[in-house]
Amino acid sequence: MTTTNDLVRQLDRQYVFHSWSQQGQLDPLVIAGAKGCRMWDYAGKEYLDFSSQLVNTNIGHQHPKVIAAIKEQAETLTTVAPAHANLARGEAAKRIVERAPQGFSKVFFTNAGADANENAIRMARSYTGRDKILSAYRSYHGNTGSAIVATGDPRRVPNEFARGHAHFFNPYLYRSDFWASDEQEECQRALQHLRRVIECEGPGAIAAILLEPIPGTAGVLMPPANYLKGVRALADEFGILLIFDEVMAGFGRTGRWFAFEHFDVTPDLIVFAKGVNSGYVPAGGVVVSDAISRHFDEHMFFGGLTYSGHPLAMASIVATLDAMRDEGVVENAARIGEGVLGQGLERLAREHAIVGETRGRGVFHALELVSDRESRTPLSASAMSEIKHALLAEGMLPFVAENRIHVVPPCIVSEAETQQGLAILDNVLGEMSAKHAA
Amino acid sequence: MTTTNDLVRQLDRQYVFHSWSQQGQLDPLVIAGAKGCRMWDYAGKEYLDFSSQLVNTNIGHQHPKVIAAIKEQAETLTTVAPAHANLARGEAAKRIVERAPQGFSKVFFTNAGADANENAIRMARSYTGRDKILSAYRSYHGNTGSAIVATGDPRRVPNEFARGHAHFFNPYLYRSDFWASDEQEECQRALQHLRRVIECEGPGAIAAILLEPIPGTAGVLMPPANYLKGVRALADEFGILLIFDEVMAGFGRTGRWFAFEHFDVTPDLIVFAKGVNSGYVPAGGVVVSDAISRHFDEHMFFGGLTYSGHPLAMASIVATLDAMRDEGVVENAARIGEGVLGQGLERLAREHAIVGETRGRGVFHALELVSDRESRTPLSASAMSEIKHALLAEGMLPFVAENRIHVVPPCIVSEAETQQGLAILDNVLGEMSAKHAA
Repeated sequence: MTTTNDLVRQLDRQYVFHSWSQQGQLDPLVIAGAKGCRMWDYAGKEYLDFSSQLVNTNIGHQHPKVIAAIKEQAETLTTVAPAHANLARGEAAKRIVERAPQGFSKVFFTNAGADANENAIRMARSYTGRDKILSAYRSYHGNTGSAIVATGDPRRVPNEFARGHAHFFNPYLYRSDFWASDEQEECQRALQHLRRVIECEGPGAIAAILLEPIPGTAGVLMPPANYLKGVRALADEFGILLIFDEVMAGFGRTGRWFAFEHFDVTPDLIVFAKGVNSGYVPAGGVVVSDAISRHFDEHMFFGGLTYSGHPLAMASIVATLDAMRDEGVVENAARIGEGVLGQGLERLAREHAIVGETRGRGVFHALELVSDRESRTPLSASAMSEIKHALLAEGMLPFVAENRIHVVPPCIVSEAETQQGLAILDNVLGEMSAKHAA
Repeated sequence: MTTTNDLVRQLDRQYVFHSWSQQGQLDPLVIAGAKGCRMWDYAGKEYLDFSSQLVNTNIGHQHPKVIAAIKEQAETLTTVAPAHANLARGEAAKRIVERAPQGFSKVFFTNAGADANENAIRMARSYTGRDKILSAYRSYHGNTGSAIVATGDPRRVPNEFARGHAHFFNPYLYRSDFWASDEQEECQRALQHLRRVIECEGPGAIAAILLEPIPGTAGVLMPPANYLKGVRALADEFGILLIFDEVMAGFGRTGRWFAFEHFDVTPDLIVFAKGVNSGYVPAGGVVVSDAISRHFDEHMFFGGLTYSGHPLAMASIVATLDAMRDEGVVENAARIGEGVLGQGLERLAREHAIVGETRGRGVFHALELVSDRESRTPLSASAMSEIKHALLAEGMLPFVAENRIHVVPPCIVSEAETQQGLAILDNVLGEMSAKHAA
């Protein structure tokens, strides 16, 4: 029987329960295959992937060296318990440590970003003996929150900590929570606000500040130049650990191995997933600094999971990181971002009234769409849906979130593909500005 | 350079941070490769795998059909966003629904068991509008507990529920928490206790009872014959959902597709991972009953993850479930369990004073070791460590937990391999009984 879009969609709707959805309202796009920055369905309709799926296929789809490594590891050993030592796991950890700044020594592997954040938090709480975690309102750190608390066995007890979370406002000048009028003011006030939250939550109760250096899902929010340095200084002042969640921004997305490198700041724990192996096999983890690593030489670590350091995932990390280095993938993301993509998006922002702001770094950008530039009123959900369908119709797979288009192609995107994507955006934003702009 | 055990161990100790461990005390076994029920290191030392790693390689190591399916899917499409429809995902969901009892219609996929439990809990809370989850003290449901609560974006709000967990005592006649003297009394009292906990926690506040039909990590605790039926009746009486965590016991381990089939009881949500694809690629999920599935046709589901329904994992599920059906793997687990393994373990229990009890079903057994049969004093940690090393020296990779040996070979284990494993256990238990039994 020939596989068709209808058959796959029907199978999906009958049997598959989807993430973050009302199941009765779904009409999923069918994807049959992919290569580089392109995906296609069974009818031969092709899409330029400007979503990188969920901003994870940094190396593009189906990179031949990573596919070969997965196949080779599949032939050797797909799975092994985390307690044992395995070559692929050691090699993967070594490569990640080598890409981290000085002062990091070990990697704890997880299945993805959510459980990587869980374990970074666990480490911070154990290391500091403190309970609270501060994180930003404009953030996304994963979808887990109760399995270990539901667990009955004694491993629950040192982990019953999914309380003691407090949130602060992070800088976002375009919609400032601090009545600021420029970057410098936004930065100073955001830091003053964070200091007040620390004081009011009690510095001695706070284990860590958890922060995406460039919040991704929240809208690719570029922090003011000195904000992260200021956060590091506050953390140091109060003996609080700093955890950077690099799940979306890390491993090339911003044109550097880690996004925090742009800001000359080093955290105590680095959380990663997605780009580390472009999601070819589910994987994530925590890069652990020397001091925290030494702490756990002497103290029990109360966390773990069956697929920690899964050989198939590890082999894909090794191949991905080697190919990214050999092929200058991170450098490509930087070059495209500073050149054709960044400049092209600025041109679109100037030309189309519907664009309120463009911001980003590397291949990590967002266009914030508004119905009125003066009031900055977010474009309506129905207009955004119209835009999404228009982009799909023109052959672009976009990443649409609230009133934004996140422009997040794979880090390997070529200049020609970027131009093609910009041309599609130009058309659609032109039509929609005529229709929806005040 | 030739790969050696020393090199791999050194790489591991330098770079890899391990689960549930004091990092300074580790001396991990090196595993180079595996096939069926056997694993080996780089020096050619072979081990009979009676652990199934973390009780996950139900189909054995490196099953050729599953490896071929992973390689084929790797060639086609390794990863795709969960929002899209994909053939492998639909096919995997269909096969799982087909193996579930009547009344289940959809599958939500996760990366493993912990986040599968998270999402079953999320569904139960949303469906019932109630907050609390009851689960057993003797249980293990995963290691997550805070990522969504740390998250700042509005997806946090409907998920800030990692509280409202209450625990009850589950039946375990050998070390009864109910002063019971036989199975029937243990059953009645355990149900009476659960009723009291429900009454005291407030029936109208309880969303679900989360239970492993046969608690695994806690010691392969076979419930009394009518216990699960009694739990189902209590749940129905109070409008509480019943979630069965089949992560360890499911997909063949007990000689049935699901462990609950032994007890003529059907839950509202089935949580799975491990055996569904033997862990060849990280995967887990929730099988959703018709009623709950219909609820989410009309209501938003507030959960999701990047690798939900990951194509590579899905392809391995399809191949695993087809091979298990075609090759009678579940039937083999039942036959070995009832025959040579179950009988052999009973013989060991009779012959060796150190064995307090043997219990289990299929290839899911535990030997409970004691220094004194009368007082049932658990064997000491140092004696257990000695036993573990003796088994390894004789070429068996065991699963040792507290004072127990979990006897959990792959479901494909042959009669000859079972005999070999029993002979090794016989030797070591003999030596150790002479040394440690009162």
